[in-house]
Amino acid sequence: MPEFPRFSSSVAAMPGAVYSAVTARLAQYSGEVYPLNVGDTWMEPVEGCRMEDLTVRENPGLHRYTPPAGLPELRRAIAQQVEDSTSLATDPSEVLIGAGATAALSTVVGALVDPGDEVLIMAPYWPLIAGMVTVFRGVPVAVPFFSPTDAPTSAEEAVEAFARRRTDRTVAIYLNTPHNPSGRVLPPEWAQALVAWAEERGLWILSDEVYEPFTYKTVHIPLRPLAPEQIVTIHSFSKTYGMTGNRCGYLVGPRELIAQCNKIGTHTYYCAPRAGQISAFKALQSPAAQSWVSEAREKYAQVGTKAAQILGVPEPEGSTFFFLDVADRLDERGLTGFLEDCADEGILLAPGPSFGPFPTCVRVCFTCAEPAVVLRGFEKLARLVGR
Amino acid sequence: MPEFPRFSSSVAAMPGAVYSAVTARLAQYSGEVYPLNVGDTWMEPVEGCRMEDLTVRENPGLHRYTPPAGLPELRRAIAQQVEDSTSLATDPSEVLIGAGATAALSTVVGALVDPGDEVLIMAPYWPLIAGMVTVFRGVPVAVPFFSPTDAPTSAEEAVEAFARRRTDRTVAIYLNTPHNPSGRVLPPEWAQALVAWAEERGLWILSDEVYEPFTYKTVHIPLRPLAPEQIVTIHSFSKTYGMTGNRCGYLVGPRELIAQCNKIGTHTYYCAPRAGQISAFKALQSPAAQSWVSEAREKYAQVGTKAAQILGVPEPEGSTFFFLDVADRLDERGLTGFLEDCADEGILLAPGPSFGPFPTCVRVCFTCAEPAVVLRGFEKLARLVGR
Repeated sequence: MPEFPRFSSSVAAMPGAVYSAVTARLAQYSGEVYPLNVGDTWMEPVEGCRMEDLTVRENPGLHRYTPPAGLPELRRAIAQQVEDSTSLATDPSEVLIGAGATAALSTVVGALVDPGDEVLIMAPYWPLIAGMVTVFRGVPVAVPFFSPTDAPTSAEEAVEAFARRRTDRTVAIYLNTPHNPSGRVLPPEWAQALVAWAEERGLWILSDEVYEPFTYKTVHIPLRPLAPEQIVTIHSFSKTYGMTGNRCGYLVGPRELIAQCNKIGTHTYYCAPRAGQISAFKALQSPAAQSWVSEAREKYAQVGTKAAQILGVPEPEGSTFFFLDVADRLDERGLTGFLEDCADEGILLAPGPSFGPFPTCVRVCFTCAEPAVVLRGFEKLARLVGR
Repeated sequence: MPEFPRFSSSVAAMPGAVYSAVTARLAQYSGEVYPLNVGDTWMEPVEGCRMEDLTVRENPGLHRYTPPAGLPELRRAIAQQVEDSTSLATDPSEVLIGAGATAALSTVVGALVDPGDEVLIMAPYWPLIAGMVTVFRGVPVAVPFFSPTDAPTSAEEAVEAFARRRTDRTVAIYLNTPHNPSGRVLPPEWAQALVAWAEERGLWILSDEVYEPFTYKTVHIPLRPLAPEQIVTIHSFSKTYGMTGNRCGYLVGPRELIAQCNKIGTHTYYCAPRAGQISAFKALQSPAAQSWVSEAREKYAQVGTKAAQILGVPEPEGSTFFFLDVADRLDERGLTGFLEDCADEGILLAPGPSFGPFPTCVRVCFTCAEPAVVLRGFEKLARLVGR
């Protein structure tokens, strides 16, 4: 019998918080702080869709459970919106509401992965996806893709990057566009080639499209129509409407998969918060919320363009991030030393290793605070990276 | 390679929704409905702790992420409360906020269970605990305990019930008091004996105390002091303050375990909703909320006593349920037929098999609707069960 205290071996091996050294340095700094490490927005959600707008009088039972799969009216409204944007008939049973897009995606991983199964993950990746596969006892496999030093240049190379890492244990691939952290957008012909390749091999396709409203030169093209029976797409009210704290996101996929995902959601968090679901429903119906999204896109594009100029890097194609290789600025203290130097100037950055095998990189968010603050942070950062 | 579509084998084997037959019958019924199957309350949360009371002006960033482990001020307030109620020094690092007590408990299971590990579960059990162990690829093992036909009558028998089912793969035991679904309370000397037995064998003790404020003849005795290094207790704002839809609950346990649980929570739902956390914090500080709890306890006790008289069964000791064996009312249609007969009268009941190996039982909640409605439902139910 193992000795006490004994934890799940796979979970115990996962890294914990990585920020303590940097936090200590920041505590000694007294000027303006630039939390460029956080993937959030400075904008409050539109009026009418805030917590203070949800009254018990208008919403009796506002503080009670909802069905685990979500409020029926919200699932219907989403199905209608997906149908409108993809021209694919979509039933509410093909939609699952989760306690945030993170929770929604975790139900997909939980529904698909047996212990030891592998998921191929476009890297650098959103930091939680690898740990999520580990939590359900699967094996995350990083596929260098939109990396500063290792990126395909054609659809063929894109497929080859995945094909090279596929084994008999591979059950799914994870795509993400617009891409966190690189700020890139998957070219439509690459998406088509990747989906076709996975489909032919009987792999599930997890398509994380939470930044869908935030493309700056092109329009986001939904991946669902490429293989509706084999793809599940992940979407966020948090990102779209500035409601990250509301914990409400959703999946769209084949009814049979959604039913399996609903089992996982029921047994991990039961249901998404009712207030978050009602806010989301209101946002979908509200012309003011749609204007809010357009306004956010425009502001994000402006600050992204300016930030890129300051850093001397290409403008972001989508999402709210840059992923920078700072190898030439590292001394014997490595990346931690660089992050500490940044913290000494009030700048917080997300460390590359959280995004896969990127020991010399950092992720920088450009929507985490008021644009003026963010841009002052980028000016300081530009000096630190020698641009 | 397995054929597409392919799901996790353990998850695919889990049962899905069980209610379709009954729902169809209910659809043909047009009178007053008695949703005695739902474990919720008819009471709205106290004024001042509702969504409409949370303004952006008073809570800037109200719609943003919180730290995954929860708002620091909420963790501090809980640690203080636990310290007050247990006389054990308790640090905020020993508290984890989850997106509901369900989510909080799921992080414990995820942190402890390797594939094939067994968890001994007091049965009948809260319906989600068995599936939760399955979701994390463990094996739930039912221990008949507060069953209508198989219950220990002494501390020795209580220990024996668990000991008989322990194997080399057992890593934890799950206790629940006040007990859902039986309405019983674990006698303190039984709790002491069970915890001592588990502690000596290096097993984790999961103590689900979400109904702690709702005991009617005795006072709930927290289990944490019995083995603070080896026990994790699960608590709910949902139940205590009538906020099930807010999705905010918490764990208290050893710091090292809480750190592992935080990894699971971060990678399954990221954080609990900020609005739910702020409401919980307000409730902890609010004298009106404390009065609300006393009032709820008194009302629940009244309706529980009357319901017991109507059914001719013992009064509930705690929680908000009865668990009835209706074997003598079943015909060749089995339990489904009985549930259909109930639905024909507008009565919904939770089927025994959701609570473990109880094919002839039902769970009945007495706080799911206004007392007058509930008691009318119990009158009808009494006729159906021949009391």
